[in-house]
Amino acid sequence: MAKKEWEKRIAFLGPEGTFTELATKELFPNDWTIPFKSIPECIEAVDAGQVDLAVVPVENALEGSVPLTIDYLFHEADLFISAEVLTPIEQNLMVHKNNVEKYEEIESVYSHPHALAQCHKYLYYHFKSVPLSQSSSTAAAAQFVAENPELCVAAIANVAAAEQYDLQIVQKNIHDFHFNHTRFFVLSKRNDRIERDEDKQQIKTTLMIKLPSDRSGALHQVLSVFAWRQINLSKIESRPLKTGLGDYFFIVELLEDENAPLMRGAMEELRTLGCSVKSLGSYYTYHQK
Amino acid sequence: MAKKEWEKRIAFLGPEGTFTELATKELFPNDWTIPFKSIPECIEAVDAGQVDLAVVPVENALEGSVPLTIDYLFHEADLFISAEVLTPIEQNLMVHKNNVEKYEEIESVYSHPHALAQCHKYLYYHFKSVPLSQSSSTAAAAQFVAENPELCVAAIANVAAAEQYDLQIVQKNIHDFHFNHTRFFVLSKRNDRIERDEDKQQIKTTLMIKLPSDRSGALHQVLSVFAWRQINLSKIESRPLKTGLGDYFFIVELLEDENAPLMRGAMEELRTLGCSVKSLGSYYTYHQK
Repeated sequence: MAKKEWEKRIAFLGPEGTFTELATKELFPNDWTIPFKSIPECIEAVDAGQVDLAVVPVENALEGSVPLTIDYLFHEADLFISAEVLTPIEQNLMVHKNNVEKYEEIESVYSHPHALAQCHKYLYYHFKSVPLSQSSSTAAAAQFVAENPELCVAAIANVAAAEQYDLQIVQKNIHDFHFNHTRFFVLSKRNDRIERDEDKQQIKTTLMIKLPSDRSGALHQVLSVFAWRQINLSKIESRPLKTGLGDYFFIVELLEDENAPLMRGAMEELRTLGCSVKSLGSYYTYHQK
Repeated sequence: MAKKEWEKRIAFLGPEGTFTELATKELFPNDWTIPFKSIPECIEAVDAGQVDLAVVPVENALEGSVPLTIDYLFHEADLFISAEVLTPIEQNLMVHKNNVEKYEEIESVYSHPHALAQCHKYLYYHFKSVPLSQSSSTAAAAQFVAENPELCVAAIANVAAAEQYDLQIVQKNIHDFHFNHTRFFVLSKRNDRIERDEDKQQIKTTLMIKLPSDRSGALHQVLSVFAWRQINLSKIESRPLKTGLGDYFFIVELLEDENAPLMRGAMEELRTLGCSVKSLGSYYTYHQK
């Protein structure tokens, strides 16, 4: 496919038909989207200038953070968040078109372990004795079912995967929790934010903070810096520094622009207090329709 | 094996030869230790009174927390921590005794994905083109190698697995990071602590705290309750409440006894502030030798 001049090149966690592709297409319907095999490969592709942006999952409402994304951004890469996309996780049971009539007799259900867990109740009530098989992604499960029409098996995946691999959805929305969303980061080498006026949300800033070594009450001090300025914290998370058990860095998300005077003051104070502070930038939230 | 009257029954995350078994044997060398297939099965066994205690991994210095343990303790079980054990993670390359002479010609290396990652540099320099195969645990990899002497393959696992499955260690201590430890919880239905005077360490209390719904600055307020009392925080972590993206509970670890007057005051204040607070108890730390 020839690259059009006006297109951005966007890496996403593949294969085609993943929820990450859905999130990518929501924000970049007309750009050149390229599947990569792993989260590190997506991030490396932006870092190396091979693509303009990368879209990777960062958090799920049920499973929590994706440690690989967080840790890779802290330890390995030097990138900024240009936007975040919130995608509803809607799962469907799908089979090869040859097997639609006999879908109730399927001999195995393929999907990512998280997707199988998300449909636990449905599977328990409808396919109690049918063995479950783990795939590396929901899209990979759909691909496997597409490539093996002689097997009477089903995949659990999203609508895009059914289209991509020409499968028939036999049961829609079989996930147990109907509020489940995954959050994706759009990553860039440049600290610029994606702005679409019609969707504009509250701005958010993500900071990665390393506390001064083992001073008691240091985390409380960090939160005080934001609290007295009434800068709201939407998330705090700890991850290992990888220097020993009990050594952590913190990911802090704040509902304020990093360029606002109060935020600039807060970051300056944190550094004066001996913290190392890395801003991943300020960005808007986009909701997948 | 007949159960002796004085023995405790201890569930651990199996199979035999895991790092969890090493941690279990450190604290309970003379008790009846029983391997279980998964973390939920270990926890359920204590909850159901089928065993007296369960030992499960909770955190690794490189990989961070074990979400399954944290989430199961918050959402599903009602247990207490009786002790924690810190175990150094030392990995070794081992082969079937028939294959010792030709170990440099191995055709595949089996282990848990974390162990393969922990020996990345060693494998890169010594077995660059040898394919890696993932197992469900380091012990399962050792078992596979033991059961397939006709294959010229190796496992990466601990010393106990080599003994358990009668394998020969051909390279000792091949892990890249020499500070790596895993932390294990000893769980009980009763809020009692395991005390061995010779090993006694600083006492620690683990609390699970749910903040009042979305009051700005609530987390800062929680930390203030501990900070002005000079109760040291050794860890704070957020995990999803599973009610929607952005809803979290917090695991807070404090270097104080839950029965100390200042801690009792702190917990009372937290509840008055609208937090829900669940103590998993106070416990000592034991270091694996």
